[in-house]
Amino acid sequence: MASLEGAGDKTLVLKLGYRGAGFAGYAEQEGERTVAGELRRTLEILLRRPCDLTCAGRTDAGVSAIAQHVSMPLLPEELAALQPRRLWRSLAAITPEDISVRGVYLADAGFSARFDAVARAYRYRIVCGNAQPVLLADCVWWLKEALDVDAMHSAAQALLGEHDFTSFCKVSSARRISEAGRSLSRHLERVDVRVVQELGEDVLAVDVVGNAFLHNMVRIIVGSLVEVGRNNRPVSWLADALERRDRRAAGPTAPAKGLVLSDVRYPEGSMEPWQ
Amino acid sequence: MASLEGAGDKTLVLKLGYRGAGFAGYAEQEGERTVAGELRRTLEILLRRPCDLTCAGRTDAGVSAIAQHVSMPLLPEELAALQPRRLWRSLAAITPEDISVRGVYLADAGFSARFDAVARAYRYRIVCGNAQPVLLADCVWWLKEALDVDAMHSAAQALLGEHDFTSFCKVSSARRISEAGRSLSRHLERVDVRVVQELGEDVLAVDVVGNAFLHNMVRIIVGSLVEVGRNNRPVSWLADALERRDRRAAGPTAPAKGLVLSDVRYPEGSMEPWQ
Repeated sequence: MASLEGAGDKTLVLKLGYRGAGFAGYAEQEGERTVAGELRRTLEILLRRPCDLTCAGRTDAGVSAIAQHVSMPLLPEELAALQPRRLWRSLAAITPEDISVRGVYLADAGFSARFDAVARAYRYRIVCGNAQPVLLADCVWWLKEALDVDAMHSAAQALLGEHDFTSFCKVSSARRISEAGRSLSRHLERVDVRVVQELGEDVLAVDVVGNAFLHNMVRIIVGSLVEVGRNNRPVSWLADALERRDRRAAGPTAPAKGLVLSDVRYPEGSMEPWQ
Repeated sequence: MASLEGAGDKTLVLKLGYRGAGFAGYAEQEGERTVAGELRRTLEILLRRPCDLTCAGRTDAGVSAIAQHVSMPLLPEELAALQPRRLWRSLAAITPEDISVRGVYLADAGFSARFDAVARAYRYRIVCGNAQPVLLADCVWWLKEALDVDAMHSAAQALLGEHDFTSFCKVSSARRISEAGRSLSRHLERVDVRVVQELGEDVLAVDVVGNAFLHNMVRIIVGSLVEVGRNNRPVSWLADALERRDRRAAGPTAPAKGLVLSDVRYPEGSMEPWQ
């Protein structure tokens, strides 16, 4: 029947929030404090066995999440023995203060938080003006100049649909993907730039939704849009940059701290709250 | 003409934001890090003279602000010599990272950020549920149970209008006010309890607007409303507590970190941006 290596009858799915500032990113790295490392250690304490986690989207150092999804096969005897409310309380008690377990779900055996995700949503936050942000300081990019929001929104619409996003991918990562013969195409269904009010401050929010993302893709999109917002580049610039398929054609990579993984979409009915 | 003691021809008004966590409150206290202390030192460096500040509302240790207002008479020679944009830049450069100068204004001589204010607005934030808040962790009160928002809103309406708020005032402060023969009456024009979305999380926001506030008044109102929201007390409880004019009749004082001074209203035309 079940072994440590085999998939259990069910898959445990956790919805996670975390503040990026305290982590060297989501993915485990030797000698670094990472989200996956902290979470894996917590689960191994609770389940008393090695755990292997899969996530919806690896976030970089400094990037936060309010809806990261992480999956892991459960052994049949764990499914029978674990009390979900108690599991949640234990997770909350053991995970560090900057990781929050926001939901506990069950999916069928074989479910993968990575491969079953059909869309990921990110929000990037910018605060503009002389006044340094107050309550938002840790999760926005502060720019002293005003930005042309309408120009940014118009420019962004060129990214919708299926495109090769080489120009908006970290160079070393694009090279690896190319060499492995894999595709640099991704499909964006939404890129909205608008001003919202959060914690009493005006926030320029860039919402990006797509099927999947390349390394640094949202941050390079935002860095490029800011060049348009500053009137350093015309509205048509993003379309041109996209067509060039060359990282040098796009703008700088925006700072990590403004970025949040805000939602992940799965096929309806693929998981249910475990309670 | 003007002397260090006399009022100048104009009053400088600063609109301030600050994160409460790092301060022992707004008001200066010997040996403590305070907002007024940091700001006064900054202004004294820039103006090279003693400065005496007046604020719209003294906030307690741990309470934040996005629209505190502070006033100070300007000497006529300062008015002539200071370049407002440069002043703002210098203020931003010298004030610590957790204080933000959000606006620089001029008002007539004799203007007082305290006595000319006609209304103050506070927002108190609560996050409910198993999941600990993520990006909002530093500025909300986290409660694990669900609250009855409608009951809280209904209960709060009993506070509208002019009332003696002794039951909602810190005991030592109420005693001092009484002994000085001053009034414990305040006028509330709005107390709204509702759920808003901020930084991707559901926030129970309590918005309170009134002409002036007693010591701990908003925090005791919130602490009392939470007792109603937990169904520990009936909706009529706040009206009863108000009538008793006794601190023991109301609920506990909610934690400071959920509270933000969010706006101060002055008569129209009483100040203009200095630029």
